Amino acid sequence: MKARAYCSSANLGTGFDIAAVALDAFYDEVEINLSEGKGDIKTEFSGPYSENIPESENTASLAAKLLLMLSNKSYDVEIKVWKGIPLGLGLGSSGATAVAVAKLLSKALGLKIDEMRLASIAGIAERAAAGSAHYDNVTASLLGGLVVIYSFEPLRAMQFEPKANFVLGIPDVKTPAQKTAIMRAITPKNITLDSLVQSLAKMAAFMIGLYSNSLELIGMAMEDKVVEPARAVVIPAYDRIKKFVKEAGAYGFTISGAGPSVIALADEKQANSVAKAMKEAYDYEGINAKVIISRPAKACSVDYSDKDH
Amino acid sequence: MKARAYCSSANLGTGFDIAAVALDAFYDEVEINLSEGKGDIKTEFSGPYSENIPESENTASLAAKLLLMLSNKSYDVEIKVWKGIPLGLGLGSSGATAVAVAKLLSKALGLKIDEMRLASIAGIAERAAAGSAHYDNVTASLLGGLVVIYSFEPLRAMQFEPKANFVLGIPDVKTPAQKTAIMRAITPKNITLDSLVQSLAKMAAFMIGLYSNSLELIGMAMEDKVVEPARAVVIPAYDRIKKFVKEAGAYGFTISGAGPSVIALADEKQANSVAKAMKEAYDYEGINAKVIISRPAKACSVDYSDKDH
Repeated sequence: MKARAYCSSANLGTGFDIAAVALDAFYDEVEINLSEGKGDIKTEFSGPYSENIPESENTASLAAKLLLMLSNKSYDVEIKVWKGIPLGLGLGSSGATAVAVAKLLSKALGLKIDEMRLASIAGIAERAAAGSAHYDNVTASLLGGLVVIYSFEPLRAMQFEPKANFVLGIPDVKTPAQKTAIMRAITPKNITLDSLVQSLAKMAAFMIGLYSNSLELIGMAMEDKVVEPARAVVIPAYDRIKKFVKEAGAYGFTISGAGPSVIALADEKQANSVAKAMKEAYDYEGINAKVIISRPAKACSVDYSDKDH
Repeated sequence: MKARAYCSSANLGTGFDIAAVALDAFYDEVEINLSEGKGDIKTEFSGPYSENIPESENTASLAAKLLLMLSNKSYDVEIKVWKGIPLGLGLGSSGATAVAVAKLLSKALGLKIDEMRLASIAGIAERAAAGSAHYDNVTASLLGGLVVIYSFEPLRAMQFEPKANFVLGIPDVKTPAQKTAIMRAITPKNITLDSLVQSLAKMAAFMIGLYSNSLELIGMAMEDKVVEPARAVVIPAYDRIKKFVKEAGAYGFTISGAGPSVIALADEKQANSVAKAMKEAYDYEGINAKVIISRPAKACSVDYSDKDH
């Protein structure tokens, strides 16, 4: 039995900590072996992004521990993770691993547990990587599509399937181990009342855009004035890319999660020229980068086949 | 020719400055006479709430001046306002007058002007009463139903028609002339990042509630933790009413605009017991108050009949 979870891009501008979209650009796959035992958990990583996974970023074992606790069963667990999602680049890599492990192990243990409970567990497990619990990436990887969290206690989210292309820009840069904590540290701690009102209006635009599939409104909401300006200064080529992709017809553009990756919203017709413009902006700034046209991904799924990647 | 505009309740909790609902509890009516002249504007007030209208709250004449300017025509304007909406109680009274004048005069002058432009003009006219321009009340009175402003520049709003009852509590208290400015002054100037995230999630819940007519979600979003706690302390009987109406089955409860009126959300079945509970709370606290079960009102309309009120 294998579970696959896709990468995701959190925030999408105004939807700070509450919105994310799962994308078909990358995925992780997880296999699990259970055996009688006292709850020892072993993790093994393979795949293109399996090197140097720090113990502190090992969300797989924490997710497994939490589920074992919940199940009240005693097993040793061997987890094999095929890492297809690059780490530390703002693509929800550690969250996807946590989701795949949680989904697969809950099935293997025969737990009756609803999706939002699973997302909660994966979000808490993700704390190992991000320093604090976040639910946006894991909810997107678990449910697929674009998700908006509308309640934290209890965790509740609405899922949408926008007909849209998301162009990812992934710079080839080294990110520090505590990247997410650093990005949180440079995020404004206090927001003016006027900024709150503007953000609420944009959140409304975002929701109207999702319900009516208006890329114009979704893109408008991606232009965040609260968190983005503070973070953009440390995102490689940010201003240049924004200028170029807007000229090429992108509806919206923002940082993917805590960066350094970026994400642009485009329709089917413009996706290629937006991707080309993004690549040109990186080239102009002398930065090596991958640019990938992606689409909202499927939910995390478990299957019994033996297909290779 | 006569125009009628209904009262409205702004904010609805989390939707601070961006959400409002027009309600059929009260309305203003306006008649206009144009004659050749140099732009003199006379206003005359009648009706149950026509006494002591301060010059500074006369949004009717400011709305008329703005429209005359826009039309580039020279007329003297006589405006007769029948004030059916009590003033200074958080029911969008001055905004409704501005809307009715703007709607009627634009028609009388033959101006081709879209609804959002009219709302902008009424909102600016409303500054005369509130001290700063607000668009939530006027947009609701103009379009009818429940509106959410999702862009300020340009002004854009989405209109909804929730199947819901709104129970208004209107205490018989004297409010100071600068009430709205005072209420703004006690509103927090800075909001934490965490509060922003919570507010965004509630705004999402509000929109999902409106799209799916879930009174539970709309009511959840009415529980604002940013502006409401600071303002609630000066709202008569606030805590008592909240407790009583929740026990009686209200989905949500909050301050109406800048108060002192309050508003509870109820379905058809619970509306009577919620109203009864609200009245009991006022009685318990020894406060004279009107309690009115209302429903989302129609748009501001112009007609040619001579019906009385």
